Amino acid sequence: MAHIELNNDLPGIRGLMAYRPETEKPLNALAEVLLRGDNSLSRGERELIATYVSYLNDCFFCQNVHGALAGHYLDCNIDQIDAIKADMQHADLSPKMKTLLAIAASVQKSGRHVTPEQIEAARAEGATDTELHDTVLIAASFCMFNRYVDGLGTWSPQNRQFYVDRAPQRALDGYQSSVFK
Amino acid sequence: MAHIELNNDLPGIRGLMAYRPETEKPLNALAEVLLRGDNSLSRGERELIATYVSYLNDCFFCQNVHGALAGHYLDCNIDQIDAIKADMQHADLSPKMKTLLAIAASVQKSGRHVTPEQIEAARAEGATDTELHDTVLIAASFCMFNRYVDGLGTWSPQNRQFYVDRAPQRALDGYQSSVFK
Repeated sequence: MAHIELNNDLPGIRGLMAYRPETEKPLNALAEVLLRGDNSLSRGERELIATYVSYLNDCFFCQNVHGALAGHYLDCNIDQIDAIKADMQHADLSPKMKTLLAIAASVQKSGRHVTPEQIEAARAEGATDTELHDTVLIAASFCMFNRYVDGLGTWSPQNRQFYVDRAPQRALDGYQSSVFK
Repeated sequence: MAHIELNNDLPGIRGLMAYRPETEKPLNALAEVLLRGDNSLSRGERELIATYVSYLNDCFFCQNVHGALAGHYLDCNIDQIDAIKADMQHADLSPKMKTLLAIAASVQKSGRHVTPEQIEAARAEGATDTELHDTVLIAASFCMFNRYVDGLGTWSPQNRQFYVDRAPQRALDGYQSSVFK
């Protein structure tokens, strides 16, 4: 049960968003532009950054929502996504993606953990300035979303298949109006 | 110098927002509703939550921008804001505000650090559900803003008086169009 009375039984961030539409709007708009807007990083790659940070923050709801979406876009199953979370350096990912996930992992600790060497390593693998910007902001934003979801004690479906089953429709709907679906 | 080429010389988050207007819009809209929208917490109290979390995250730019704004609204000088940051439990604050800052400090570590006892303590001092919600989301959002500012290595004016001098105009302008001022 959430720490506050949400007057709805929606799980995770959806219950919070329905409770407070004034903040739902900019939060969903941010997710929409970061995870689905025009970008040289694919939607799957961006959902994977969100998943990885949510995993590092131990947020069950977010790592499953976004892990299922990453799996949907990248054509991976749960086990493959879990393998990336557990050991991304040895996972089946492009060298560029590994350098971006390393930057995201630093951001998860603190902005000050990102080093010039990490930025240079990503550039050497072809990362552009906008990709570096968006990687940092996606990672930072999930340090917000994860704290929001867990800080208010929201509930989450425990069956991970729930998230997998829901991902294709969420991929069609996007983030703009998730409260009402 | 920032980790990426921003094509402007604006400090802190302002340089990032000018670089990427697509993400500036929802970020500023979120700050506007959280820190300035209608609320039973005063603007000064909300800026103080933002300042405290930015201090805990060691983000020089954000703790000075928002510390100066908190001081502006609460009629405190820099030394008084610094005293609150250093030891809020013994600072000249309402008992309710101390319970909300304690929740914010837990959110800064992780959403999972917020305890039912902290929530009950805040309620006992008169905190409403919406105040609890907004305290958690302000704290969470500054875990994003701080990481965004520092994760991309932006520069900050080092003279703290710069932020104090700028606060009254920022209080008038709000967050909606900060890039263009």
